Amino acid sequence: MAVPNIKLNSGYEMPQVGFGLWKVENNTADTVYNAIKAGYRLFDGACDYGNEKQCGDGVARAIKEGIVKREELFIVSKLWQTFHDKERVEPITRRQLADWQVDYFDLFLIHFPVALEYVDPEVRYPPGWHYDGDKEIRWSKATNQETWGAMEDLVEKGLARSIGISNFQAQTIYDLLKYAKIPPATLQVELHPYLQQAELVRLAKAEGIALTAYSSFGPTGFIELDMDRAKSASPLMQHEVFTTLAEKLNKKPAQVLLRWATQQGLAVIPKTSRPDVMTENLDCTAFDIPEEDMKRIAKMDLNLKFNQPTNYFPTEKLWIFA
Amino acid sequence: MAVPNIKLNSGYEMPQVGFGLWKVENNTADTVYNAIKAGYRLFDGACDYGNEKQCGDGVARAIKEGIVKREELFIVSKLWQTFHDKERVEPITRRQLADWQVDYFDLFLIHFPVALEYVDPEVRYPPGWHYDGDKEIRWSKATNQETWGAMEDLVEKGLARSIGISNFQAQTIYDLLKYAKIPPATLQVELHPYLQQAELVRLAKAEGIALTAYSSFGPTGFIELDMDRAKSASPLMQHEVFTTLAEKLNKKPAQVLLRWATQQGLAVIPKTSRPDVMTENLDCTAFDIPEEDMKRIAKMDLNLKFNQPTNYFPTEKLWIFA
Repeated sequence: MAVPNIKLNSGYEMPQVGFGLWKVENNTADTVYNAIKAGYRLFDGACDYGNEKQCGDGVARAIKEGIVKREELFIVSKLWQTFHDKERVEPITRRQLADWQVDYFDLFLIHFPVALEYVDPEVRYPPGWHYDGDKEIRWSKATNQETWGAMEDLVEKGLARSIGISNFQAQTIYDLLKYAKIPPATLQVELHPYLQQAELVRLAKAEGIALTAYSSFGPTGFIELDMDRAKSASPLMQHEVFTTLAEKLNKKPAQVLLRWATQQGLAVIPKTSRPDVMTENLDCTAFDIPEEDMKRIAKMDLNLKFNQPTNYFPTEKLWIFA
Repeated sequence: MAVPNIKLNSGYEMPQVGFGLWKVENNTADTVYNAIKAGYRLFDGACDYGNEKQCGDGVARAIKEGIVKREELFIVSKLWQTFHDKERVEPITRRQLADWQVDYFDLFLIHFPVALEYVDPEVRYPPGWHYDGDKEIRWSKATNQETWGAMEDLVEKGLARSIGISNFQAQTIYDLLKYAKIPPATLQVELHPYLQQAELVRLAKAEGIALTAYSSFGPTGFIELDMDRAKSASPLMQHEVFTTLAEKLNKKPAQVLLRWATQQGLAVIPKTSRPDVMTENLDCTAFDIPEEDMKRIAKMDLNLKFNQPTNYFPTEKLWIFA
């Protein structure tokens, strides 16, 4: 099935449906390879996911076998916050490109708009949030402006075709738009029926920034992480609204959840290890949710954010979404 | 009654209870004069409130009559966002000081972390959000860093003793802390039982920033503005939790609402035109709300923000709290 493209403000086209690589831990190379065979062209990775080498192996195998060409893929990665100091950005990007076995990223994002003290990748990689692995949070003095300038240099040097941001609040975006020579092409945020982010969606649209929704299935992805907050929320795929709608549309609840986002013009990046589900998830742009059901889903917003550091590290001073 | 002071990171002391000047429109000079007589020493003004001259008249009268000395007062004002370009900050501050008939502010805040195109005060003052009075929003390119640098210059020049911020989200604060040579002394945000801002309170405490709660009475202050969102919320002063508690403590519900904030260590800035209520409101630090009642109030959070531009200008692209 044909996945539509979203035209970015950088001039490049981005597939609206991609494959998310967070928490893909077992047989990662096979998963990526199978996803390419299933028709995925966008892969959404990050230093922090700890699997970029394996992802690169999967891509290399598919290219070697002639299943896909590099230029048909749209590879996304992200800058971790221990590399926000301007002199750290290019070296780590080159390392990440080497892991992926490619010479440019289609899109490279600032993962979070906070800066942490540099950790040498030879000491620990991926570095995570804590300077000593699990003990201490150490901030860096790199401003968002400094880091964005270094991101723009990546474009200049051909290491990234488009650059963007993730987990930015509105005020951080407005400030960025003032100093950016290259505006962000995309904004990636947690977004699902329990966290609809209606104002951020409007902001991104008004500013010409494409928006990618992550964690489209809501709590499900966080129950794997044993997060209490996620266990307290009803799973969306079993929620009566989505089971009923899925039956009506002859689709799976997961497909309906993804269509809810794509029908709003958002990009999505679901993951799964099952090839049959890969194919199903990819099919989330070619049917429509009736307007009355879109309105019903709009009422489900709980402003319930799962992916925030305070949910993982309750004793740390990391209130970055307050 | 003695109002406690909060020690700021600038070394100065700030009264924990002050008088808020937003929406004080009639007999403003008398109101300020009466508030000084009632014992208020902190006055929280702003260019945008459109009443700084009248406030200055009230202060001048009290000083002239020997009721208070300038150095016993703590005068707060705020930089409006049409003056964020660095060359605009000092001239407008000097104008605001002239209106107040004083030669320094005890505290000067960035009112909102967004920058709008300059409007000549001779053309319209206060300028409001719209460039043409009511037609168009025009952004300026002044970054938060540029504006904060100009705020720091005010301290250098003796025009402001302490400087701070208002309506900043967490990420904006974290970024500011990286480039600030002078850290913000205070953060002023909307905060009441329906919008408890628990994470922002913790952030401010962890970073040594004093926090001032505005709109302590919740929806009440916004019903005056005919805001639907405010009319949909139950008035806090008539809410059973506060009427019951007020009766138990032999206080007014308003005093209990203010004590809920001051008991957490926050500063408050209520307003009223009635001298008897002025005296009551000032008495919001000398009694205690029992721990069990504090816990009951903690459960009332609705994350319900009234003071956001989208509530006033629903068609404008001003999603600054998303």
